Formats: sequence, C-alpha cells, structure tokens
Amino acid sequence: MAAWADSGVTADPGRVHTEGRMARATLEDARDQVADLLGVRPRQVVFTSGGTEAINSAVWGATRASPGPVVCAAVEHSAARDASARSATVIEPPVDRFGRLDPDALDRVVEHCRPEHGAPPALIHCQWANHEVGTVQPVAEIVARCRESGVPTHVDAVAAVGHVACDLDALGADLVSVSAHKLGGPPGIGALVVRRGLRIEPFLVGGEQERARRAGLENIAAAVGFGAAAGALAAPGRLGREEEDARRHTEGILAAARAVPGVVAFGDTSDRLPHIVCLGIEGVEAEPVLLGLDQAGVAAHSGSSCSSETLEPSPVLRAMGVNAEHSLRLSVGWSTTDGDVEAFADAFPSVVAGLRSLR
Amino acid sequence: MAAWADSGVTADPGRVHTEGRMARATLEDARDQVADLLGVRPRQVVFTSGGTEAINSAVWGATRASPGPVVCAAVEHSAARDASARSATVIEPPVDRFGRLDPDALDRVVEHCRPEHGAPPALIHCQWANHEVGTVQPVAEIVARCRESGVPTHVDAVAAVGHVACDLDALGADLVSVSAHKLGGPPGIGALVVRRGLRIEPFLVGGEQERARRAGLENIAAAVGFGAAAGALAAPGRLGREEEDARRHTEGILAAARAVPGVVAFGDTSDRLPHIVCLGIEGVEAEPVLLGLDQAGVAAHSGSSCSSETLEPSPVLRAMGVNAEHSLRLSVGWSTTDGDVEAFADAFPSVVAGLRSLR
Repeated sequence: MAAWADSGVTADPGRVHTEGRMARATLEDARDQVADLLGVRPRQVVFTSGGTEAINSAVWGATRASPGPVVCAAVEHSAARDASARSATVIEPPVDRFGRLDPDALDRVVEHCRPEHGAPPALIHCQWANHEVGTVQPVAEIVARCRESGVPTHVDAVAAVGHVACDLDALGADLVSVSAHKLGGPPGIGALVVRRGLRIEPFLVGGEQERARRAGLENIAAAVGFGAAAGALAAPGRLGREEEDARRHTEGILAAARAVPGVVAFGDTSDRLPHIVCLGIEGVEAEPVLLGLDQAGVAAHSGSSCSSETLEPSPVLRAMGVNAEHSLRLSVGWSTTDGDVEAFADAFPSVVAGLRSLR
Repeated sequence: MAAWADSGVTADPGRVHTEGRMARATLEDARDQVADLLGVRPRQVVFTSGGTEAINSAVWGATRASPGPVVCAAVEHSAARDASARSATVIEPPVDRFGRLDPDALDRVVEHCRPEHGAPPALIHCQWANHEVGTVQPVAEIVARCRESGVPTHVDAVAAVGHVACDLDALGADLVSVSAHKLGGPPGIGALVVRRGLRIEPFLVGGEQERARRAGLENIAAAVGFGAAAGALAAPGRLGREEEDARRHTEGILAAARAVPGVVAFGDTSDRLPHIVCLGIEGVEAEPVLLGLDQAGVAAHSGSSCSSETLEPSPVLRAMGVNAEHSLRLSVGWSTTDGDVEAFADAFPSVVAGLRSLR
C-alpha cells in the first residue's frame, strides 16, 4: 500500500490514459490475488467497501430477483439479519447451543416455505463460521442441499476467510461475502464473490465499475492491501501455520480462562475457528473486565464485531441461550505472540478476582 | 495517512480498549476537519465509502421517508439519476444549453407534482455544480425555495467542494454529498452531510457505526486523508489561491483549445467551476484525441467521471443538446503546474490536426 501511495498514480482505472491503465493493472493484480486465495476466477470478485456492504449487496440482489422470504438464523451477522429484515420476510431456522445450524432442520424450513409463504426462499444465509463464538457451520452440506433444491445461498465468510482454508469454488455458493481487515488487510474493502453465470442487481448504482456490479470509484490503495494480505496467505503452508499458531494461542487463552472458577467458553470449542474465543464470566459484567484487561495491555471486547460495547446484548448469544452481558471475546491474529497470551493469562485471573471482590 | 499507518493502531473505534479509543479520537479529529471545511457540525458528517454511496444513501433515506416522486435533472450525476430511478418516479426538470436549472421552472415542476403524482416530491436533487462541464447551479436559490415549500433537497456537491467555497450551513440543504478524492483526499471515502435534526433510514445496515446512520467498520486511514485534505483547504487563503490557480490553468487550456478551428467549450465558461473544462472537437472522436494527448503526457478524458470512455454517450451532454462522442474533459488540481498547461497547449493542436488529416 505504501508503494502504491508513493507511486503517485491516483488515476481512475476506467480511463484510457497511461495513468488510468496503470491503475487498472494494479487493481486487477489485487483482484487476482484475492481470487487466488478464495479459489475462484478473478471476474467473480466484486470489490466492495467491506463485509457489511458485501452482505447488504448479496441480500439486495437476491431479494430483488425473487419475492420469497429469506432464511436467516439469529446467529448470522447483524448485516445479514438487518439487510434481510428490511427487504423480505425473515424465517429463523433453529440453532443448537453452540449456535450451529442443522441441515435437516433447514431442509424442513425450506419445505414449509412455499406452502406457508407462497414462494420458495429468495435466499438462505449460512455463515461459514460464527463471528462471535467461532462455531463452524456445516456450510458445505447446507450449500450442497440448497443447490439441489435450487435455493440461492449466501455464505458470510467474513470471520472464516484467512483463518481456515476456504475453497469457494468447491463450495459452490451463489454469493459469498469477505472482508479484508479480518485477514490482515486494511479496513474499507471487502468482496462479494458471485457464482459464475449469476447476474444480480447492484446495490450501489450510478457507475459501471466492477463490471457494472458496484458503482463508485475503485479504492485501489485498499485493494492493493487486500491483495497483499491474500497473497501472503496463499503462499504454500502459510495459512496452515497461522491456523496452528492461532489454535495454540486460543487454547492457551481458554486454558488460562477456564482455570478461573465460574468461567466458561461459549460455542463449540473443538469444531471452531482457530482465532476466536468467547468466554462467559459468572458474576461480573463484561465492560469492567475489558477495562481491567486493557490496563494490563490486553485489548479484548464483548458482543459482536459490529456493535459497540454499550449496545444491546448480542442476539447471537441470546439465540444460543447465553447471557451476553457477561461475555468476553478474544481474538488472535498473525501478529499475536506467545507473550501476548501469557500477558492475558497473567492478567485475567486477577482482573476477575478484583471485580468479584468489589461485589 | 502514512503516519496513521505507521502508528500500528488498527483497532475498531467502537471498542473501549486503549487502541479503540485512539482510533475513535483519530476518526473524530478527521470528522472535525471535514466539518470545518464544510461549515457544519461534526455530528452532521456521516462518512461513507465515497460520493456514490453518499448519493445512494441520500436517495434511499428520502424515498423511504416519503412516497412522492424524485425531481432529478438529466444533468445530475448518474448516481443521483440511477438511485432515484430505482426507488421512485423521476421527474426531469428542464435545463438550458449550459446544463443549468431554472428555479422558476423547478417551482412549476413542484407545483404540478401533487396533482399529477398524488404526492409532493420525496426529494429534489440540485447539484452544486456540474461534474462534466462545470456549470454552477443556482443552488442557494433553489434550496431556499424548497425550504419554503417544505420539499426535501439533496445537493450533490462532489464536484464543487474543495474547488469553490461551500458553506453548507448557510445553504441549509437537507442532504449534501461530498467525495474526498475530488478535493485531494484518497479514494474510498466521502460523506453524507445531514441537516441537523433530520433522521433518515440508513442505506447500509447491520451495525451502529456513524451514529447508526451507516453500518460497517469505519475506514479510519481514508478518513485521516479526507480530514488532512479538508484541513489543508480550510487554511486561511488556501481555497481562494487554489481557485485562482485553477481558473488561470483552465483559462489557458480554453484559450489554447479554442485557437484550434472547430473546437468549442461546453457549459457556462464564465459561471463555472474553476477546475473543469469540457471541449467539443468537430470531426474527430474523443478516444483517439485522448490517446494522442496521453502520448504527449496529458491525461484527459471524455464523458462523465463515473463511466468509462467506451460506454454510452454522456446524458449530461445529451441533455444540453451536445454531441458527446466528440467531447473531451480536462481537469486541473492542486498539483497542476503552468508547465502542464503548456504541455497541453503544445500537444492539442497537433493531435487534432493529425487526426483530422487521417479522415
């Protein structure tokens, strides 16, 4: 990104002059890198301003193409839930205590859809893995069944891509949302991956950019960062090594946390994303724990990754039957060290004990 | 932007930890700078991914709040036209041969709206100045009349802000769209400026960012760049000096171009933006002129700033009764030198003569 900024080329990639063509080539190189990580063709990748826009665009396109309801579990990201709720009737399939969808239960929802709502679903959301607790969904199974029954699918892969191997070509979903900043790239860019041959109405209109699928001048600096992060992750062995490191780090966090009485882990702690841990802490609220950890140099958070600490309790945890006011979320990434995990392990017991002693 | 990147802080500004609060402070500093340039309060500024998203959001909010038609001249940016056309009946007020709206004609459109369409307009678009030919609109007059008659207004100020003084508080429009990259900031960020007290439904949903007016993780790096550009332009005398330089440069371009037989300037060449010139070149098409100028080191373009050279003729020029296939657009900016203008003046006559000799 710094090299791109230093190049001084700030041209519109839609132009035929030299600077425009340089911008175009740079943008398409970045698209190639992202497509390569995801296992899709570059033209399937529509750059957006982030995961939220990608998800809004997916819902927009699907609900403009069909009048049916949208199937969206309560554990889906608020972007999927809110965008669906404003454009269609939403049917919530059940999830288990880990927040996991059941493919058979989902089949029954689809079967009942036509008689009860007069149309098959316009879209089924199935996140690759949950953004708050890390539970991995049976996404391949669900997408395969939906393909058989002809129901369009959107997979929110924002939390998963860059942390576990995600071969989107093998998955075969109609629409997949990805975010750069979740995998080491910059904020301000994401992608909607569109199945080959699928045409959807654009959400942002007023320009022919991104093959007329997303209007607005392309954010090339951010695309370069997204491409670089994707390129790094696509290097042989890299993703596996990062996954292994992340799993070791989160296992360390889990072990340290569970050693404190009254602390539990939410979500499926075995079949989960390697880099996310969600804890429930009996008897203390999340915010003072966050502040205590912050004083010890540990940046933790509570609730969803798209709402601030002070808002409503997480609907994800509510759907799992969990008290969100006492939940704490910790994530590790490519820059996390063993020392960071030790800092948490040192700080956490005393922060919790200190707060409990105040009651 | 480089300093922000080097700081290593990449936290979510919605978080309570130290890094989150640093991110929040940086974001709000940038918002203050943008608000200061525009003459509005910081809380009126909603950061978006660019001008296109700001305009889409304005139309979304206005058309969700009211069932009436949208008044949108053919000279408005395609984002205003396309977003309006998909959400409402569009009424096109007339423009003159410079692409200028007539406040009296607009009044008559508004008067006829209720009897003919069953509702007053949900929104009237009035761009501050045209993005292709530079013609300045009677925007203050139009907004003042709309305020009197209670019709909501959206002002696309994307082409104008940073090039002429734009006091949005004095203007009093309901919604104003701005883009950073048009005023020296980076691509990937813009702003929707919302009148105090006005609440509109967000376009992007699924997060409470930007006071619940625009979902999605904030692009702080881009906001820093937007703020820095706005801050530079708000320095005493700076905007006036840049305007003066731009006007001298475009006057030089106009003089050199008009010295070539069969070359005319489109739009109002006196009451216009200082930095845009749109030329009509008799007998040759735009694209070979662009390529010829490019070889001479001059990056010019044709058509709108949001469509590529190869697409449909500009609806702006069509509305003005101009043949868009022979039009050429030249812009100058803060980095343009007198030498750049001389390079154009040297190259243009021979490029046109060369192409004409091939006929």
